[in-house]
Amino acid sequence: MLKILEGIKQPNDIKYIPAQYRKILAEQIRSFLVNNVSKTGGHLAPNLGVVELTMALHLCMDFPKDKLIWDVGHQAYTHKILTGRKNEFTTLRQMGGLCGFPKMTESDCDAFSAGHSSTSIAAAVGYAKGRDLQGEKYKIAAVIGDGALSGGMAYEALNNAARLKSNLVIVLNDNNMSISENVGGMASYLGKIRVDSAYSDFKGNVESAIRSVPKVGNAIASKIKNTKDSLKRLVIPGMLFEDMGLTYMGPIDGHDVDIMVKAFKTAFSAKKPVIVHVVTKKGKGYEYAMKNPSKFHGVDPFDPATGEFLNKSNEKSYTDVFSKSLIDRASRDEKIFAITAAMPTGTGLDKFKESFPDRFSDVGIAEEYAVTYAAGMAAAGMTPVVAIYSTFMQRAYDQILHDVCLNKLHVILAVDRAGLVGKDGATHQGMYDLSYLTSIPGLCVMAPSSGKELKMMLEYACDGDGPFAIRYPRGEAYKETGEIPPIENAKGYVCYETLDAGTKKCITILAIGSMVEKAVKVATNLEKENVAVKVVNMRFAAPLDVKSIEQAIKNSYMIVTMEENEFTGGFGQQAAQVVASKGYESNCRFVNISLPDDYIEHGDVQSLYEKYGLSVSAMTQKIVEEMKKQ
Amino acid sequence: MLKILEGIKQPNDIKYIPAQYRKILAEQIRSFLVNNVSKTGGHLAPNLGVVELTMALHLCMDFPKDKLIWDVGHQAYTHKILTGRKNEFTTLRQMGGLCGFPKMTESDCDAFSAGHSSTSIAAAVGYAKGRDLQGEKYKIAAVIGDGALSGGMAYEALNNAARLKSNLVIVLNDNNMSISENVGGMASYLGKIRVDSAYSDFKGNVESAIRSVPKVGNAIASKIKNTKDSLKRLVIPGMLFEDMGLTYMGPIDGHDVDIMVKAFKTAFSAKKPVIVHVVTKKGKGYEYAMKNPSKFHGVDPFDPATGEFLNKSNEKSYTDVFSKSLIDRASRDEKIFAITAAMPTGTGLDKFKESFPDRFSDVGIAEEYAVTYAAGMAAAGMTPVVAIYSTFMQRAYDQILHDVCLNKLHVILAVDRAGLVGKDGATHQGMYDLSYLTSIPGLCVMAPSSGKELKMMLEYACDGDGPFAIRYPRGEAYKETGEIPPIENAKGYVCYETLDAGTKKCITILAIGSMVEKAVKVATNLEKENVAVKVVNMRFAAPLDVKSIEQAIKNSYMIVTMEENEFTGGFGQQAAQVVASKGYESNCRFVNISLPDDYIEHGDVQSLYEKYGLSVSAMTQKIVEEMKKQ
Repeated sequence: MLKILEGIKQPNDIKYIPAQYRKILAEQIRSFLVNNVSKTGGHLAPNLGVVELTMALHLCMDFPKDKLIWDVGHQAYTHKILTGRKNEFTTLRQMGGLCGFPKMTESDCDAFSAGHSSTSIAAAVGYAKGRDLQGEKYKIAAVIGDGALSGGMAYEALNNAARLKSNLVIVLNDNNMSISENVGGMASYLGKIRVDSAYSDFKGNVESAIRSVPKVGNAIASKIKNTKDSLKRLVIPGMLFEDMGLTYMGPIDGHDVDIMVKAFKTAFSAKKPVIVHVVTKKGKGYEYAMKNPSKFHGVDPFDPATGEFLNKSNEKSYTDVFSKSLIDRASRDEKIFAITAAMPTGTGLDKFKESFPDRFSDVGIAEEYAVTYAAGMAAAGMTPVVAIYSTFMQRAYDQILHDVCLNKLHVILAVDRAGLVGKDGATHQGMYDLSYLTSIPGLCVMAPSSGKELKMMLEYACDGDGPFAIRYPRGEAYKETGEIPPIENAKGYVCYETLDAGTKKCITILAIGSMVEKAVKVATNLEKENVAVKVVNMRFAAPLDVKSIEQAIKNSYMIVTMEENEFTGGFGQQAAQVVASKGYESNCRFVNISLPDDYIEHGDVQSLYEKYGLSVSAMTQKIVEEMKKQ
Repeated sequence: MLKILEGIKQPNDIKYIPAQYRKILAEQIRSFLVNNVSKTGGHLAPNLGVVELTMALHLCMDFPKDKLIWDVGHQAYTHKILTGRKNEFTTLRQMGGLCGFPKMTESDCDAFSAGHSSTSIAAAVGYAKGRDLQGEKYKIAAVIGDGALSGGMAYEALNNAARLKSNLVIVLNDNNMSISENVGGMASYLGKIRVDSAYSDFKGNVESAIRSVPKVGNAIASKIKNTKDSLKRLVIPGMLFEDMGLTYMGPIDGHDVDIMVKAFKTAFSAKKPVIVHVVTKKGKGYEYAMKNPSKFHGVDPFDPATGEFLNKSNEKSYTDVFSKSLIDRASRDEKIFAITAAMPTGTGLDKFKESFPDRFSDVGIAEEYAVTYAAGMAAAGMTPVVAIYSTFMQRAYDQILHDVCLNKLHVILAVDRAGLVGKDGATHQGMYDLSYLTSIPGLCVMAPSSGKELKMMLEYACDGDGPFAIRYPRGEAYKETGEIPPIENAKGYVCYETLDAGTKKCITILAIGSMVEKAVKVATNLEKENVAVKVVNMRFAAPLDVKSIEQAIKNSYMIVTMEENEFTGGFGQQAAQVVASKGYESNCRFVNISLPDDYIEHGDVQSLYEKYGLSVSAMTQKIVEEMKKQ
């Protein structure tokens, strides 16, 4: 077999591959992707879908001079291969290895970093404006999926792109999918363009058909022409985009490199922004991914021959517990309504949907809408539960504050993937939510330390009134086997103490959420060294359990806070406020253990904990060192 | 003259006014609005524009049973009048008085609180879903302006509204304006519908015209019909909305109550969401407001006879200083580009636009886009300056974090109206930004204490690299007449100290931004009581000036932080972290003076400072009391 892919060693090498070998190249890229991702894990189906699309763009562009901007960015693997990063794929998403998303610091061929959705057109319009003002000449293309088009910023950007007087190519990569099924009016519209072959039949024929009518034909045609765009409406698919002032081309076959090259060349030659609508198949070329693109969207290692995942965890994740607990509650409480923003599987709400299809909405990649929609529903008397990953909840900061909390509405935010998420890396870490959520007045923010506690907190939030957020991490839920006290507002409890901790001054660890389990392990480590320790499971980041902190000030010579959140604005700083204001006479030391104020790279979570000092051993050591300072 | 308006005493009273008196009622409402707002100040032009629209909706709806949801909400005065709040207009926007926006806690006829833009359709769809699930029957209407339609969440909501199987009326109040001129592809599209009378000529006539052609007419018509929606495209304006799956009606005259009542009745009877496109004139019926709707959008007291404002301040505001300084910089620095989100006048960028029309973008009410657009432009080598009010910057939290700061891009955020804004009230207070901005890693957050310092900080940010935010308040800029040290990263300076503050332990006030001026006044008050005091102008909220705080711990028996921001996550808490970690041996007291974690109501700023303890006298007293505790 010809080793075409071997010939791709640096950017633009694809241009030296003879045209007749492009199909083979596409096949070899697909095999490469399936083989590598089956070992490392990563995003598969989205990347298989855009092999030809990426090739066609690379045939029309010159890297790194030209700027190719990916939306979300989980589909940029072929782009990475074609820009000389093929050999790094064995390290994909591992610590120090290749990032799973475009990253400006990784390569000058990555024009804009991505991770979150619906950003590409905005960035591309900015690039175009910057290019033009500086009198530079380079091509700019943004690739956005139909799923990402459900996000409001994409629309804001289209709305503004229409005003640009220079070239910009927006490739609408339409695979009729978000991670899951796509939703909404825009999706139906695109569906109609895709399947309605009548559109293309009609192209250009209506006017001549009408004109050919004897005697009156010309008059009718002219009258129709008077309405300017009306005739266009008859013959052009994508009129919605044209209505918004953008030139539309398509739909074209996203697996035919030659057709795409022709279309892109035309598009790049226009003196205005052009949308090229390309229809692709998610998972293309790998049987199992085509059959189940949602399952193969992002994967752990699998057997490429069978499509079976290698490490099936039977442990229950926090997401599982949330899903099951919410279904349980909904079966007893008709007011419960579940909302996801294009993540039914990731949030576990797919199972909720099966049980209560009428009480479930997937609103598309539209976190802002999800939250204000929930606010409206709560105002009407329901109890909506909005499940969104921590990193994406950032997008609804204002909606949580202005629409939900200012109105004291009974909305429950289920903040999944809080803390380090690992391999998705810097764009996806859920390490800011304790800061941005606790700064929203009136929002009760809880973090469970076990599956059992998550269920209790969910029940507590459903029973309550006003806004709640519950943040819980990715991965296996800690199994609490003992009895734990019921949830009470702003109240933590001592979940571990050494025998002597009650009788003499001790170290008190104030831990929240995922850190409670580790705090107990740290405490048992210290116990072995005859250190008296108490661990308080704080449960609430807001309102803060001030009493427990005051108690700790009295009884401790050192207070240690532990959270899986950045330092600034986090739980620890809020505890520090109490210590600073009330502890001035106690000489109580204060140690804040949290993640740094930074963007933490991809890698397996355990290695990241070690590196950033959140592993049990690192934390034990830190406390021992602090003790020595006394 | 008939006193029709006098007859309106409670909700639904309008229904008892005979139809022939409706014009008089509209006139009387307008006079009432002009007279009252000329005395109290408030939003004028938007309210004058929707008098008939509000009347028509009230004629078709039943309050408080039915739900009328206003977008932004600055146009709800007539709604307040028609729901029995006429007599409260003398207290409009004053402390304890009528709120300038719809407010759920003010009246059960205010179905949803508003203030920020583009939320109404989302809330309305949520309401509709809640209504249907609970088997209730009431009408729901959302009124959204064409300006608010440039916000992404409005599009996310339209995209989802299309899936609703029950009634919801979306009134598109199209006045061809945001606060200033409207922008973007959608605005052009609406403009086209509005002016192209050919659309309405054609309504329903094309098909019969074609069919009337002898012999072939029927065949052509059928062939056209085969394309399903194509014929519709010819005859229906608002096809863009239809394409998105929504039923469109209009455009209709928004100053003709009878036509609107007919349209709304039809719209409310549909079993699906309907958009009614209503064309109104901002400022209608008041000469000066019609001529200059932007100037009369939100006003201070004025003379109704002449349209002249009564209190012309000649003092330079922070906004003026920002505007002038940026123009000055841009004249020396070709990389500077200014961006506003529909607030050219409010942010002072209208003057920048006059000087540098090519280096200015008004992106519409689209804060998310504004920030990511800036990120793209910075990636292309420009230095974009994005001027957005603090309260609206909340909407771009994720874009600042994920698109700008993660990529370390040189974007400057000019955060205007930071701190209490006063009369606009709870939805508009700029009191959260120190919390949400400092929690974004890598963002340098500064706050000037004077106009001079603002200019210096802007220069510093332009000279630098990476992301910067400068937050400054509404109103007059403090005039610093003395020399002040140059801006250095994470470095404040002692701006005031009593003679003995260097020689003995003192009180150190760490103040930021607008609080520095007050802190100095507090210090001089304390000085009179022979208290030794130092005031540090901190300048930076991030990175924190840890050295100044450590210095203060050593030299002080009490540290007081002062900020015009909420408590949680603010500057004071971050200082508390330093005190708690480093001050355990010093016995230094810590007092945090900030705004409460709450939503602060409307009222004049000075009264609010008094109430919430941020006036000079309240702060002096607070410190004196804290001293007594020792």
